[in-house]
Amino acid sequence: MPSPEPVPGTRGFIIPIGGAEDKMADRRILKRFIGLCGGRDAPVVVVPTASEAEDTGARYVDVFDRVESGPIRVVNISTRHEADQPEAIRALEGAAGIFFTGGNQLRLTTILGGTDFAQAVRKANARGVHVAGTSAGASFVSGHMIAGGREGATPKAGMVTLAPGLGLTNRVVIDQHFRERDRIGRLLTAIAYNPYAIGLGVDEDTACFIGPDNVFEVVGRGGITVVDANDCESSSMARTADGHPVELVGVKLNILIHGSRFDLGARRVLARE
Amino acid sequence: MPSPEPVPGTRGFIIPIGGAEDKMADRRILKRFIGLCGGRDAPVVVVPTASEAEDTGARYVDVFDRVESGPIRVVNISTRHEADQPEAIRALEGAAGIFFTGGNQLRLTTILGGTDFAQAVRKANARGVHVAGTSAGASFVSGHMIAGGREGATPKAGMVTLAPGLGLTNRVVIDQHFRERDRIGRLLTAIAYNPYAIGLGVDEDTACFIGPDNVFEVVGRGGITVVDANDCESSSMARTADGHPVELVGVKLNILIHGSRFDLGARRVLARE
Repeated sequence: MPSPEPVPGTRGFIIPIGGAEDKMADRRILKRFIGLCGGRDAPVVVVPTASEAEDTGARYVDVFDRVESGPIRVVNISTRHEADQPEAIRALEGAAGIFFTGGNQLRLTTILGGTDFAQAVRKANARGVHVAGTSAGASFVSGHMIAGGREGATPKAGMVTLAPGLGLTNRVVIDQHFRERDRIGRLLTAIAYNPYAIGLGVDEDTACFIGPDNVFEVVGRGGITVVDANDCESSSMARTADGHPVELVGVKLNILIHGSRFDLGARRVLARE
Repeated sequence: MPSPEPVPGTRGFIIPIGGAEDKMADRRILKRFIGLCGGRDAPVVVVPTASEAEDTGARYVDVFDRVESGPIRVVNISTRHEADQPEAIRALEGAAGIFFTGGNQLRLTTILGGTDFAQAVRKANARGVHVAGTSAGASFVSGHMIAGGREGATPKAGMVTLAPGLGLTNRVVIDQHFRERDRIGRLLTAIAYNPYAIGLGVDEDTACFIGPDNVFEVVGRGGITVVDANDCESSSMARTADGHPVELVGVKLNILIHGSRFDLGARRVLARE
């Protein structure tokens, strides 16, 4: 279920970040996000629900202030009841951007899934508010979310757990801390269940700025691994027992770096601008 | 990603059937489906891709003929290459209904997912063609599909495998052969990941006729168990290790039988007509 976009092309950006984004040196991902939102004039909402640490929200207030953001509102939601309160929804009013911190993506789905707050974020994105998420927050933004899994390079049946996410887009399945935690096996496994989605493996300190036209640009120090199985000839997932390796014939991989652009609709790399 | 409905309210019915539908006696599910499609005048397409048996399509030609159907076209697709051929798409032209047989739902996602045929079925449903599926075919129609899992009444982390399905609707997660195979634990587990979706546990010889207004009616001999966790206070999934029981506080269950009607948007049972 993609965001209920009232007019095609008006959706805000969707920005999964691979975790551990630079907060001290050149901070190009956070600067780019704040610039997109409108800089000093634009309120941004931070949602630290994924994290159990109490200072996660306050930490991002400092970090965003150092990249010349507008006012930062931290919305502390840690129960489903809080996610259905009018104050939570009101915090989104007038916001130009929403930022989901890292932590555990199952906290995001179990606390926010189906609540008024989740619905309000979906509607905000549909009318042009940009939504970024880092680490667990990156996994959460898509419709099919990697909830967990095992490390390793070979896809094996049962090595990944999928769950419904926020559903701002359904075109991608996102994994984060990608090369740092050796996650290509679990991303390939996720795609092997149904090749229609495109797998995005986002490295640390790297972000994927997905525009309303479903073209994304890579920003940051690492790479993004794009797994496209739509033209694959076969996937053995239907006959593979848990723990056994999966056969996947004809998967296309693209490894993209800072400045690369990719069209998720046409499934191809674009010329650099 | 629900079907790309051009005009709201024009979508065809979505009809998950719990498997083992009566094919010999009063056959009320199949009669109702054929009647909805338009009876003798209406071509219906049977897709036996889930099954590895060679005679599955032919068997349904006989079964539908006995309930006074229109012409039945069997589309045999067993590879991704076949699912991208123009003949497969042409078979859908003029069809009033599409029927996915039982078998293995991962054959449906791995062979059809992301292909031209899957896209054509989605578009057909959006413009008014009715799509039914029995057993594996029932699981396949929704966006979040139960690919497999373990039996038992207690929800346990890791007891269900979710995968992306065809995505005609995202409001429900469907399980089939429901009471016959003791699947309430795995359906509760699926909903515990993200309470926004409504769980539908469909018994054998029982069907859920979901209309374009997202109101469904139960038809058949068994029941449909509706799991609604949207008002639940908490789900422990974010802190539960695989194999351990999941705490879910405040889930609402409705057990519905032949003639019951339920509004998936308002999440409530309606008066009988």
